[in-house]
Amino acid sequence: MQIKKEVIEVNTSKGICIYNITPQIEKLLQVTSVKNGQVLVFCQHTTTALAINEDEERLLEDVKIHLSKLAPESGIYLHNDLHLRDVPEDEPINAHSHLMAMMLSSSEVIPIVDGKLALGTWQSVLFFELDGPRKRAVLIQISGETN
Amino acid sequence: MQIKKEVIEVNTSKGICIYNITPQIEKLLQVTSVKNGQVLVFCQHTTTALAINEDEERLLEDVKIHLSKLAPESGIYLHNDLHLRDVPEDEPINAHSHLMAMMLSSSEVIPIVDGKLALGTWQSVLFFELDGPRKRAVLIQISGETN
Amino acid sequence: MQIKKEVIEVNTSKGICIYNITPQIEKLLQVTSVKNGQVLVFCQHTTTALAINEDEERLLEDVKIHLSKLAPESGIYLHNDLHLRDVPEDEPINAHSHLMAMMLSSSEVIPIVDGKLALGTWQSVLFFELDGPRKRAVLIQISGETN
Repeated sequence: MQIKKEVIEVNTSKGICIYNITPQIEKLLQVTSVKNGQVLVFCQHTTTALAINEDEERLLEDVKIHLSKLAPESGIYLHNDLHLRDVPEDEPINAHSHLMAMMLSSSEVIPIVDGKLALGTWQSVLFFELDGPRKRAVLIQISGETN
Repeated sequence: MQIKKEVIEVNTSKGICIYNITPQIEKLLQVTSVKNGQVLVFCQHTTTALAINEDEERLLEDVKIHLSKLAPESGIYLHNDLHLRDVPEDEPINAHSHLMAMMLSSSEVIPIVDGKLALGTWQSVLFFELDGPRKRAVLIQISGETN
Repeated sequence: MQIKKEVIEVNTSKGICIYNITPQIEKLLQVTSVKNGQVLVFCQHTTTALAINEDEERLLEDVKIHLSKLAPESGIYLHNDLHLRDVPEDEPINAHSHLMAMMLSSSEVIPIVDGKLALGTWQSVLFFELDGPRKRAVLIQISGETN
C-alpha cells in the first residue's frame, strides 16, 4: 500500500470559471507506482467545488448559467451584510459562491484500475472557481497497491 | 488489504429512471472476504448519477419532478445547439441530463463494517439514468481488511 | 494500515438545523495513530446530509433559505400522500427533507495529512438535520498508515 499527497495550484480568473484538471491528476498518477486504488481530489476552499462531467465548452457555459439561476449573485443573502459581521475590510460579497459550492461537491473519489484513472470516455475532473480571481489549492491524494 | 474491482451493467429505460442497485453491490461484497473497508460506487458516464436515499416509489417520482423543475428538458441550453458543435449525427439533445448529473453525484463511498454495507435502515444506493435508454456501466471497487 | 470505526451521535432540534461536527471528528482522529489516510464521514439517514463549508452563522441561515426555496416544505409531493402508502401512523410528512438530502451529500471524504484533517482555513464539516428533532448517527471511518 502507498499513500501519496500532492497539490495542484490553480490561478483562477474573475467570477465563475471551470478548469479541467484531469491532465494534471493523470501526470501525478503516472509518477507513482499505484496500480489499483483511488485518487481523492479535495478542494481546500469554501467557494470552489468539483464535479466530474464532460469538458464541452458550451455545456460549461450552461452550467454557469444554471448555477447562477439557482443561487443568483444579485440575490439577498444574510452572509453579505458585512456591516453585521466581524470581518476584514477586504471581505468579499460571496454568499452565492458558497451556496453554489454546496450544490456541487468539495471532493471527488476516482478509482485507479491498472495504473490509470477509471474515467469514462466523456468524463473529466472539473474544478469550479466560484469567486475568482484567486490562487487556489486542490489536494490530490493517491492511494493503493503498487504491485 | 484487498482491492477488488467489479462492474454492474444496467440496461436502462427511456428518459429519467432510478434503479436500486444495493442488492447487486451486496452480492459482490459477499464473495469478497473484506470485513472492514469501503465500497466505492462510480458511474462512468456524464448523464447518469448516484444518490443514497429511500427506495420509495412515490418519492422517486418526486425526485424526477424535482430534477426536471431545476433543469427542465424544455430549457434553452447552448450544449443543445448541435449545429454549432462538431458532433456525430446521432448526438443526443441532453444538456438537462448533464446538469441533473452535476446536481447529484458521480460516486458514492459506503463504509463496510463487519463484512456488511453500513447503510441505515432506509438507505439504498440509487443509480439515476438521466438520458435513457442506454447500456450503462457502474464500477464497484471494494477495498479493506480481510481478517 | 489501520481502519477504525466510530459513531458520532447528534440530538437534533426541530426542522432544518446545521451542526459543525469538525471538533468531534478531530477528537476521534487524535486517539488513533493514523498519520496519512482518510476520514470517511457517512450519514446513516435519508433526511440528513453533509457538506463541507464555512461555519458562519448568517451563511448557514442563507443555506436553509436556499434549500427551502429549491424544495419547499409547502410543495406538493407524492411521497407525502400517506393515505396512498403502507406506513405507520407516526410517518412524517418529509418529502422536501429527502430532496434536500439528495441535493447535498450522504458522505464526505477528508484527507488526513501528518495526523491532521487536511481542511482549508474556512472549511468545517457540516451535518444537516433536515427533518428534526431526532436522534441521529454519523459514522466516522478513519483509515490509513500509522507510521
